[in-house]
Amino acid sequence: MNRQEIIRQIKSKRSFLCIGLDSDINNIPKHLLDFDDPIFEFNKQIINATKDLCVAYKPNIAFYESMGVSGWNSLQKTLDYIPENIFTIADAKRGDIENTSNMYAKAFFKNMNFDSVTVTPYMGEDSVTPFLEFKDKWAIVLALTSNKGGLDFQKIESKDGKQLFEKVLETSQTWGTDKNMMYVVGSTRSEQLSEIREIIPNHFLLVPGVGVQGGSVEEVAKYGMNDECGLIVNSSRGIIYASTEVDFAEKAREEAKKLQFKMDILLSEKGI
Amino acid sequence: MNRQEIIRQIKSKRSFLCIGLDSDINNIPKHLLDFDDPIFEFNKQIINATKDLCVAYKPNIAFYESMGVSGWNSLQKTLDYIPENIFTIADAKRGDIENTSNMYAKAFFKNMNFDSVTVTPYMGEDSVTPFLEFKDKWAIVLALTSNKGGLDFQKIESKDGKQLFEKVLETSQTWGTDKNMMYVVGSTRSEQLSEIREIIPNHFLLVPGVGVQGGSVEEVAKYGMNDECGLIVNSSRGIIYASTEVDFAEKAREEAKKLQFKMDILLSEKGI
Repeated sequence: MNRQEIIRQIKSKRSFLCIGLDSDINNIPKHLLDFDDPIFEFNKQIINATKDLCVAYKPNIAFYESMGVSGWNSLQKTLDYIPENIFTIADAKRGDIENTSNMYAKAFFKNMNFDSVTVTPYMGEDSVTPFLEFKDKWAIVLALTSNKGGLDFQKIESKDGKQLFEKVLETSQTWGTDKNMMYVVGSTRSEQLSEIREIIPNHFLLVPGVGVQGGSVEEVAKYGMNDECGLIVNSSRGIIYASTEVDFAEKAREEAKKLQFKMDILLSEKGI
Repeated sequence: MNRQEIIRQIKSKRSFLCIGLDSDINNIPKHLLDFDDPIFEFNKQIINATKDLCVAYKPNIAFYESMGVSGWNSLQKTLDYIPENIFTIADAKRGDIENTSNMYAKAFFKNMNFDSVTVTPYMGEDSVTPFLEFKDKWAIVLALTSNKGGLDFQKIESKDGKQLFEKVLETSQTWGTDKNMMYVVGSTRSEQLSEIREIIPNHFLLVPGVGVQGGSVEEVAKYGMNDECGLIVNSSRGIIYASTEVDFAEKAREEAKKLQFKMDILLSEKGI
């Protein structure tokens, strides 16, 4: 999916919501365990209930990988079920030396047909560029993450006064463009979004951490939104586990709707 | 596998060699393609030919993941085939927020029963500690990698004069011990090993990059070996693709033997 298609979707749905499919066999409603593939059934019902409210789905690959072969099957079925005009993110945090990153890119882009993969920048340029060589596919590079440990290294200040995540933003811009790269910036770090926008005014940001992790969509929009929106804000647990009863899909829709309603207003305020 | 068992193996085999199973369907000998599971057959023959010469096997997870479900099956069969007294490393470079790293740890330690997983430190403490909570299992944290891009961020100097990889070594020591953590240091960076040994005198180092990537086992031992060896040196392509003909296993053994012969001498020189 290319940049214009993402923006078109945001404008027509009045939403920049991504729903994280962190689907865990231990947390899904018990009545689904009678299905052949409970994880797929769960995802299917979540997708049916929310697909008009969000612009992206983000399966968290760890949750599928932890189930072995059956997990990979559930993931592929989920991916095939997501409507083609919705952006898909493999939240995999991959990255390795060049010939190995090539293999990961092949796994997620060719075999599974994801639109994008999250990538960790620690190993530098050749660990990321293999993900940039596929037409209309995206590498979403970690910059400033929402978790507590995100502060351990990402904000270390270097001799020239720049913090590590700023170095990542600056250096990686030479690897790709705003048409094949996005950045992860946690919503719990929204105070830094203005600063980040000075370095990368145009790139899309994938912003997790709204909901259970404590981030606010208004704060994110205030400091991070640009003229083409430039934001994909993710909520996972706050939506998919809004209820663990038979009404889980309906409750998920209600939570997604609340966020979409806020996003509609924020987009309008920005004239989008 | 615990630290003492690793050291015992090194002493008895006179080797600190790890063989990287970067097994790629496009690079293995053509006659293996007639087997039901060519990748497993390739690995099996490599293991049969080298298991007395090495102390560890390191499947590169990307190569299996890129083959989808059949790749995961080949990986599990390979893991089950590796003799129990040989250390196994899932070279996966995983790492995410805590509840997600928990899932990756479950995937590799519980479901697949690997002894260790390589972990990327960019997201800090809570992305690594879930891998430290399993008895006799190991997190192998990236410090200074052998690839060109390894220089993009890992050697950025912070205000206090320390480089990022040094910060990673120092900070992460509070997360675990030399009994459940190792570090990745590329053999192409052996000039830094003395420095690294000042920060972590006792930890085991996983050292890739010998062979095709240009590192030397003598240099690595000179600057990195400690009184209990403290090194696991990996070679992948230089061994497993020494020949792509029917004699591939025999040639792999010859290459492994050359390295083991050098390692025997280096261990003796150190009085181990």
